[in-house]
Amino acid sequence: MSQEILVERDGMIATVTLNRPHKLNAMTKGMWRRLGEVFEELSADDGLRCVILRGAGSKSFSPGNDIAEFENERSNVEQARAYGKIMAHTLEALKGCRHPTVALIEGICVGGGMEIAGCCDIRICGTSSRFGAPIKRLGLVMAYAEIGALLDLVGEAYAAEILYEGSVFDAARAKEMGVVNRVVPDDVVEEEAYAAARRIAEGAPLVARWHKKFMRRLKDPTPLSEEELDEGFACFGTEDFQIGYKAFLAKEKPDFKGS
Amino acid sequence: MSQEILVERDGMIATVTLNRPHKLNAMTKGMWRRLGEVFEELSADDGLRCVILRGAGSKSFSPGNDIAEFENERSNVEQARAYGKIMAHTLEALKGCRHPTVALIEGICVGGGMEIAGCCDIRICGTSSRFGAPIKRLGLVMAYAEIGALLDLVGEAYAAEILYEGSVFDAARAKEMGVVNRVVPDDVVEEEAYAAARRIAEGAPLVARWHKKFMRRLKDPTPLSEEELDEGFACFGTEDFQIGYKAFLAKEKPDFKGS
Amino acid sequence: MSQEILVERDGMIATVTLNRPHKLNAMTKGMWRRLGEVFEELSADDGLRCVILRGAGSKSFSPGNDIAEFENERSNVEQARAYGKIMAHTLEALKGCRHPTVALIEGICVGGGMEIAGCCDIRICGTSSRFGAPIKRLGLVMAYAEIGALLDLVGEAYAAEILYEGSVFDAARAKEMGVVNRVVPDDVVEEEAYAAARRIAEGAPLVARWHKKFMRRLKDPTPLSEEELDEGFACFGTEDFQIGYKAFLAKEKPDFKGS
Repeated sequence: MSQEILVERDGMIATVTLNRPHKLNAMTKGMWRRLGEVFEELSADDGLRCVILRGAGSKSFSPGNDIAEFENERSNVEQARAYGKIMAHTLEALKGCRHPTVALIEGICVGGGMEIAGCCDIRICGTSSRFGAPIKRLGLVMAYAEIGALLDLVGEAYAAEILYEGSVFDAARAKEMGVVNRVVPDDVVEEEAYAAARRIAEGAPLVARWHKKFMRRLKDPTPLSEEELDEGFACFGTEDFQIGYKAFLAKEKPDFKGS
Repeated sequence: MSQEILVERDGMIATVTLNRPHKLNAMTKGMWRRLGEVFEELSADDGLRCVILRGAGSKSFSPGNDIAEFENERSNVEQARAYGKIMAHTLEALKGCRHPTVALIEGICVGGGMEIAGCCDIRICGTSSRFGAPIKRLGLVMAYAEIGALLDLVGEAYAAEILYEGSVFDAARAKEMGVVNRVVPDDVVEEEAYAAARRIAEGAPLVARWHKKFMRRLKDPTPLSEEELDEGFACFGTEDFQIGYKAFLAKEKPDFKGS
Repeated sequence: MSQEILVERDGMIATVTLNRPHKLNAMTKGMWRRLGEVFEELSADDGLRCVILRGAGSKSFSPGNDIAEFENERSNVEQARAYGKIMAHTLEALKGCRHPTVALIEGICVGGGMEIAGCCDIRICGTSSRFGAPIKRLGLVMAYAEIGALLDLVGEAYAAEILYEGSVFDAARAKEMGVVNRVVPDDVVEEEAYAAARRIAEGAPLVARWHKKFMRRLKDPTPLSEEELDEGFACFGTEDFQIGYKAFLAKEKPDFKGS
């Protein structure tokens, strides 16, 4: 099973691969659990600056959960709840990863696959990618954690369309709805996603982490404390600010330390 | 008056028509009240799976409230408040309908008309449809219930543009702003809206109702209780899940029972 | 310094200009402070109906804060906090201006410049305008006030892309993301922005102020009081409603008094 969620690392960029290509990377309970663990581990890694999440092969990111599993793993409410808690935990681990995350989407990105991609920060897909959540055909419901992530992504009107009509739609429509940030030709999806990751990795990593922390905090309507507001200026005390500022004046590329 | 809000039913799909074609379906106080009652009745009907809302004729969905009524029904603050409470109640009844709702929009969809369409789940319009809320020319304000619905639909920046500039705009601009889900050629709006309704009606009805309930619940920032979270898995105990699952394995079309 | 924030008035429309063209209108601490004061003064002016905010010259709205200032004004956390409080206060003054505000954007609109434009109600730019917030290259963070405004404007997914990748992007992409309301040919940006301002100024000014007040109120999840809900109908007691209503019946252009 651990081979079904691959983690590779190239310098400051990690790549996580949903790796079950003979099933188009359909997710199993074990894969969901492992995916969450992997993102928690990567999140804790101070040396990392960006995580790319992709599917094995170019035909599919993921079509969602493996239906074959339903008989033994999701055949009743109790089992489904246990399974759903793992999914919710993993989606939260994706969103909560301290480092920016980029979903590299090729081919099918449906159901749980679209949910996983939707919990990354940035989504880049190819023109022939396909999206949707046709679970109403199965008599299945998106639980709160899943539907919350979908609403964050596309808003009410498109979420309603996706869930009620249950259509599978193309990349252009996905872009229009806000499902993806960018659509590029199929043969450059990988190139574009890694270029984005490198742009991210070249930036000051503490800055990215603060931005992510602040954006997540602002989803909570509780008023900000003075201490929290002050954290918005902590960057001015970092070594990286000195590096960035001097590089800017010298018209050089900064080499950030993450400190 | 009851003829001015028509309700027809064809199997699991109901059609509600704003039926005052000699006035382009301009709304009156009585029509607002009746529209709310109709949606409360339809909402309670377990046999229903989708409601289409449209205007009579192909020239207009609705231009909003009949100005002729102002003299007797909205000539001062007291009257306006009473009228506004009916409007707010009806917009809430539209939003609160348990079944998915589709606005079939042909021609003029302005002011209160756009508000009514905006409280449906999905909006499909023709290329020659026109939208806007030019109430600043009348010295009139959208009350909180109305402006809240507009913000949900298009966000702050476009709501500001719509209200402050008061322009009437075309379908392409409406799409861009998020006023409508889809724009189709005028001669297929009806076909497209009913096709959407059929797609919705083919899905498991309890699933649609749960999705709608969950999406509405998530607009409230109050944390979810354990019991609420659990409801996300109740579908696994339904007969429809068994039907859907078996149909999927058999590669057949499921015939859901709504139970 | 007071020359660096120009205020001109033509009837009911005021124009505020970021006026430091030899630095492409880069902002200084003094300009930030003065910009806030100016908007507070304009906000209090009952005779005003719209404020246009622009940069001097056609090459740049503003590239954001003048980097040259960092050495003396933002060299440590303490200084940055003091500077940031002025910025936050000014962004709030822009948002809180009682009158509708229109950003007329030509050329560069980056960093703090994009933040300033983003706190106007409506943004109109030319096709060759450029946007972005490449502060990750400097090791700098958007504080809460700034990032909150960015999230309101473009949502999570695009805010993440803007901040993490740090790219500078063109007007078409800005439109797609929601950074601007409208993109027009460069040589008509000014014409289009003033046309919008005139449309706004022709409307009932109390209506615009109520709409703005209500939209801002709805960002606060606290339930509305009965008194607040009632304010939605106060317009029916205004002289301007009588003027608007009579002009409508007479098919004339209303001449609102603002009372």
